Amino acid sequence: MALEPTREDKFSFGLWTIGWNAQDQFGSATRPHLDAVEAVNKLSDLGAYGMTFHDNDLFPFESTAAQRRTEIDRLKGALDSTGLVIPMVTTNLFSHPVFKDGGFTSNDRSVRRFAIRKVIENLDLAAELGAETFVMWGGREGSEYDSAKDIRGALERYREAVNLLGDYVTDKGYNIRFAIEPKPNEPRGDILLPTLGHALAFIETLERPELVGINPETGHEQMAGLNFTHGIAQALYQGKLFHIDLNGQRGVKFDQDLVFGHGDLQNAFSLVDLLENGGPNGTPAYTGPRHFDYKPSRTEDINGVWDSAAANMRMYLLLKERAAAFRADPEVQAALAFSKVDEINQPTLNPGEGYDALIADTSAYEDFDAAPYFGGKGFGFVKLQQLFLEHLLGAR
Amino acid sequence: MALEPTREDKFSFGLWTIGWNAQDQFGSATRPHLDAVEAVNKLSDLGAYGMTFHDNDLFPFESTAAQRRTEIDRLKGALDSTGLVIPMVTTNLFSHPVFKDGGFTSNDRSVRRFAIRKVIENLDLAAELGAETFVMWGGREGSEYDSAKDIRGALERYREAVNLLGDYVTDKGYNIRFAIEPKPNEPRGDILLPTLGHALAFIETLERPELVGINPETGHEQMAGLNFTHGIAQALYQGKLFHIDLNGQRGVKFDQDLVFGHGDLQNAFSLVDLLENGGPNGTPAYTGPRHFDYKPSRTEDINGVWDSAAANMRMYLLLKERAAAFRADPEVQAALAFSKVDEINQPTLNPGEGYDALIADTSAYEDFDAAPYFGGKGFGFVKLQQLFLEHLLGAR
Amino acid sequence: MALEPTREDKFSFGLWTIGWNAQDQFGSATRPHLDAVEAVNKLSDLGAYGMTFHDNDLFPFESTAAQRRTEIDRLKGALDSTGLVIPMVTTNLFSHPVFKDGGFTSNDRSVRRFAIRKVIENLDLAAELGAETFVMWGGREGSEYDSAKDIRGALERYREAVNLLGDYVTDKGYNIRFAIEPKPNEPRGDILLPTLGHALAFIETLERPELVGINPETGHEQMAGLNFTHGIAQALYQGKLFHIDLNGQRGVKFDQDLVFGHGDLQNAFSLVDLLENGGPNGTPAYTGPRHFDYKPSRTEDINGVWDSAAANMRMYLLLKERAAAFRADPEVQAALAFSKVDEINQPTLNPGEGYDALIADTSAYEDFDAAPYFGGKGFGFVKLQQLFLEHLLGAR
Amino acid sequence: MALEPTREDKFSFGLWTIGWNAQDQFGSATRPHLDAVEAVNKLSDLGAYGMTFHDNDLFPFESTAAQRRTEIDRLKGALDSTGLVIPMVTTNLFSHPVFKDGGFTSNDRSVRRFAIRKVIENLDLAAELGAETFVMWGGREGSEYDSAKDIRGALERYREAVNLLGDYVTDKGYNIRFAIEPKPNEPRGDILLPTLGHALAFIETLERPELVGINPETGHEQMAGLNFTHGIAQALYQGKLFHIDLNGQRGVKFDQDLVFGHGDLQNAFSLVDLLENGGPNGTPAYTGPRHFDYKPSRTEDINGVWDSAAANMRMYLLLKERAAAFRADPEVQAALAFSKVDEINQPTLNPGEGYDALIADTSAYEDFDAAPYFGGKGFGFVKLQQLFLEHLLGAR
Repeated sequence: MALEPTREDKFSFGLWTIGWNAQDQFGSATRPHLDAVEAVNKLSDLGAYGMTFHDNDLFPFESTAAQRRTEIDRLKGALDSTGLVIPMVTTNLFSHPVFKDGGFTSNDRSVRRFAIRKVIENLDLAAELGAETFVMWGGREGSEYDSAKDIRGALERYREAVNLLGDYVTDKGYNIRFAIEPKPNEPRGDILLPTLGHALAFIETLERPELVGINPETGHEQMAGLNFTHGIAQALYQGKLFHIDLNGQRGVKFDQDLVFGHGDLQNAFSLVDLLENGGPNGTPAYTGPRHFDYKPSRTEDINGVWDSAAANMRMYLLLKERAAAFRADPEVQAALAFSKVDEINQPTLNPGEGYDALIADTSAYEDFDAAPYFGGKGFGFVKLQQLFLEHLLGAR
Repeated sequence: MALEPTREDKFSFGLWTIGWNAQDQFGSATRPHLDAVEAVNKLSDLGAYGMTFHDNDLFPFESTAAQRRTEIDRLKGALDSTGLVIPMVTTNLFSHPVFKDGGFTSNDRSVRRFAIRKVIENLDLAAELGAETFVMWGGREGSEYDSAKDIRGALERYREAVNLLGDYVTDKGYNIRFAIEPKPNEPRGDILLPTLGHALAFIETLERPELVGINPETGHEQMAGLNFTHGIAQALYQGKLFHIDLNGQRGVKFDQDLVFGHGDLQNAFSLVDLLENGGPNGTPAYTGPRHFDYKPSRTEDINGVWDSAAANMRMYLLLKERAAAFRADPEVQAALAFSKVDEINQPTLNPGEGYDALIADTSAYEDFDAAPYFGGKGFGFVKLQQLFLEHLLGAR
Repeated sequence: MALEPTREDKFSFGLWTIGWNAQDQFGSATRPHLDAVEAVNKLSDLGAYGMTFHDNDLFPFESTAAQRRTEIDRLKGALDSTGLVIPMVTTNLFSHPVFKDGGFTSNDRSVRRFAIRKVIENLDLAAELGAETFVMWGGREGSEYDSAKDIRGALERYREAVNLLGDYVTDKGYNIRFAIEPKPNEPRGDILLPTLGHALAFIETLERPELVGINPETGHEQMAGLNFTHGIAQALYQGKLFHIDLNGQRGVKFDQDLVFGHGDLQNAFSLVDLLENGGPNGTPAYTGPRHFDYKPSRTEDINGVWDSAAANMRMYLLLKERAAAFRADPEVQAALAFSKVDEINQPTLNPGEGYDALIADTSAYEDFDAAPYFGGKGFGFVKLQQLFLEHLLGAR
Repeated sequence: MALEPTREDKFSFGLWTIGWNAQDQFGSATRPHLDAVEAVNKLSDLGAYGMTFHDNDLFPFESTAAQRRTEIDRLKGALDSTGLVIPMVTTNLFSHPVFKDGGFTSNDRSVRRFAIRKVIENLDLAAELGAETFVMWGGREGSEYDSAKDIRGALERYREAVNLLGDYVTDKGYNIRFAIEPKPNEPRGDILLPTLGHALAFIETLERPELVGINPETGHEQMAGLNFTHGIAQALYQGKLFHIDLNGQRGVKFDQDLVFGHGDLQNAFSLVDLLENGGPNGTPAYTGPRHFDYKPSRTEDINGVWDSAAANMRMYLLLKERAAAFRADPEVQAALAFSKVDEINQPTLNPGEGYDALIADTSAYEDFDAAPYFGGKGFGFVKLQQLFLEHLLGAR
């Protein structure tokens, strides 16, 4: 049975996820601090292959260099003893009051300088730990009030920062790529680069666009009512899915950070199908970490924390199993063919055809009969959807 | 008083807006057909400078070449007699049953060929009428069901179509640029290129990205809960605001197409401020048509249609007047300075500074005192917002 | 196998669902008119037990009495020959231009009188056909603009209309109850009685509240981001679930009217569990029709229409099967017990206890130890949710 | 000028609003604790008439009786010296870990008992301070997972609690009424009684419905995409607007708690118009406190806190001034008449008319001509809306 996670599944968790003490906007913590070493050990036992963290998940903002080093070394010891890896590191530019108007794009220039320096220091740590992806979530980059932020100026400052960091990792020879994580709102009223589309567009303005991709999060796109699978497909199309944050969200509301699959279940299914079977000849379309960025519900104690961690992996593996069966079912293949799903991969133009040849082909337009599309030529999409859901339900 | 629209204001209206017969998802038409010539005459009287249209606003899908020509010539006569211009033309690839799964990205290849040919024919018309912008709203490009559409294939077909059209206008020497209009959903469950960010990103994959920009619509971005002014700012930042669709929307729901300013009023205010005063030294940041893409409410008869057309222009001019006063108010300028709004335009790095110099500047990090940001160093954003709203309210 | 629908399942369909010709806000019809007799015959073949309709689904608004009678008699013939029943009838007060500002609450008094009369005539038809539920969806009762509608006045007119209709059915001795169908918006910007909560509250103001309940629709509540299962539970709690409209919706957006279960799947699962197993000792909590109010996607031809009709019933039966297994699983029962789910049905007060006794019980407050709730006393909700989803996935 | 707040305006603020230390879901506090005495003094200086609080705003959850008394007495001293009043008190049943699954409706019965006792103690304090309204916001009453909460059981427990509290205040002779505050979600995934409609409906099930009304909050209804003014109108219609929480929200997203008027401005305008001019002959429709439940943005220091407090009152007074002008404008009155806005207050039936007389009146139906509603009989709503907005903008 393939439902037991192994290292080959490349499941990773943020230290801030299992370590969330469950303090929220309206209530105090319901769980004590979770030590990073305990986190590593337990994640290893559960079958994860990696852990990730923000600098200040590991050591507080105010740490001295010695305190910082102590925590790093303790972490490295745990990694050595378990074999767990650190595939990704990220920087906290959002919790401390100094970042109340953002990091890279704070209106306060001295804060922006401080933020870049904090990231540079953290890049060194990422390199030391062998992380190959460096995520940037700009949760405080934004505004509540339209006149309070010059957005073009803020984008230019964001660009300046990322360009400099690109210089840094390039010159240092670090094997690190950046991944921008978009979010539409919360904690700011409106956040810069609110969707993965905006982030993809921004990346094209950079000096080293090849160094920078995105780290989309299920819930963040769904908070804007967007189809996460569609977004990931565009990211793959543009070669920019450098990392992924999997979790669950139930609609357009505050950021829920539920367990993966515990939100929009059918979209989770199509996502796993895309990631696992969307490459050439049904190979995986994405081979990086399957990273869970979720929050164990505030109602849970430490047992619930570990149950929820396991649930993320189990949901993924279940959906992967279902997706394989969906792809293998001859009736599904017939339905996909009827719906012409693969015909979209056939070029619209004939080989070598330009507009002149297209115009000359009167069968394409002048002699084309549009009438049969009324009352006929149905696409059979509902039948296909039903098959898709029956496979999800394990009913076939 | 600047509240009477003139041709210099560059206000334009879609023929489908004032001409909407008010048939909606749940009810039949409440208004008869509006003739294009009458539309031109009345828009001219009201002070608009331009009208735009989909091919099938002017002549039905089934028209013969002769019928089509008759309508075009009638329109040209009306333009000649009034001086109104056609700054933009667009193609209807969404109403007829043939497009039920889209135009450029229908799973049915023969539909895709038909769609491209329909657009080519319409490009000739656009050129004939002197339109400089050609909008593409792919309202049927999308899906209801995740397994029914291969999104990467669909993006590749979209790209193929736009590349071919780019060849066509280039070779023909047409003075036409394309503008993609994003929308998240409705009529499809999920639409391709759902936000202006996704469209901006897609454009970078094209063979002639310089030929293609975007035509964002107020309500379409707001249907995803996004800040329209922020989005327009990013479009301007990336040099891609080729056209704009102004209207009103009251939140995350169906596409309301209200009069401009009749939806999210403060966002409309910040938008006009950006468009009119957001260029260098307070010049306009956008000089193209102020195009209204709205629907006169179904409750209205023809008098209400023209009242609503006038209301769009009057709201814009009122907000423009308010924005000028906002910018001119010394107290606003002081508040903007206190909030460091313009400091975002100061580079974060010193002239010539690289990461080495930044690291060497211990005042930026090691000696930086973050403590005063707790309990102090407030940004004054609420006060600025209050001033912004008081100017909007004409209360200063 | 219980996945073949039978009459005992009490599945019913609106004639306007399978008969929708697929004309939408942005496109013309893709399917021809479906005759009511054909609809009855086919629904019967598929295993439905009932069909429902608006008056103008059966005969056009402009019908003469003779035309109306012809259609009614044709329908009755089909019912006789198939055994299908008409459990519910409803009135179209939203399609014709006369209702552009509503029916019962149009600002135009003569329209209100017309609307009430139209309903009275339709009540006679409902009684003739043996319908026991009469639904009122006030889709045009509302406004786009806050100053255009006096909401208290409109509620008072709504009340006046329902009171009169209550008089009518009572005096006539009709075995008919009314069910109000709430919706937050679309086609109006804001609709009166936007959620089932508002409708339940309004009913309490009526002269005959016992005659009036609600007909909640999955997608309508979910368009407001509300949990449909929670809403149905409150309706059951208040004894007011007189009818139900099942369909699918994917989030806060336009009204999608997808097949039941093709939207928010886990919420559909909990709903079926509630309806089927939520009564005393696990009996059904609701025994009325399982009525599907959906739209076969516009991409489909008549084959897709019937596939989608069948899909509604199959999804319901699949979820019913899964819910039975969920309830029967000892591990689920243990998890429910651990989570104290049933402890909510234990009164908080001891038998006969008033506030004095509660105050006197110092164990309840003064000696109560809240400390263990930090770091302990987890509720195990995530584990329960995982079991719930594994049953939904057929993975146990 | 009426823009300086006075005690007669009845403006009140929650201690938790101005006292919010700006710790949010993603960041630590940016402001120190605000002492209640300082809060009272400053609010008094600014022109407020009242302050409100949760028990644990005034003294921590863990306080001894002596510590509690000290804080109460300090508060009373400040009230005496300033003349400020405490019109409303509320209980914190959401911050401490003990309430992680709710208070009145926790699955854990001992928590429910504790919660009721905490409220009883707080009722005594409310009575001591002369508060006449006791608000109950059940922010933790709800669930993330559909199977984790038996909603009907939870409603029954909610009912049990409120019934007991009703007994208590009645027997004690307290001059206190209860007001339930609805919210759709956050911090729970779904909250019980998610909208004001659901709360109004629930109240009808209570033993003493006359004792219980609602305390709707602008942003809470708007988080569900609902029209706040419409909701308030229904609350007034049902005689249940016992208190109101004014603030600002920009659409369907997390709970923003902006300054009143800093969110949906036109809805704020129609609300003030309703509250101030919606009573008989244009008198106020609501005479209770104008209570601000907002959060000074996290970017602000204490100066921004007080600026934001003042901004709430100034926005209200500005909108009140604009509403008076709107009502007084003869052109508005003509537009309202044209739109038949007041005709909704004319009964649909003639005096004494029953259904028989209505049926007998053939002019109502058989001879009614619906045809002119096509192409004519426009309602003029857009023109009215434009006048409404021009008054809001101070442009008339």
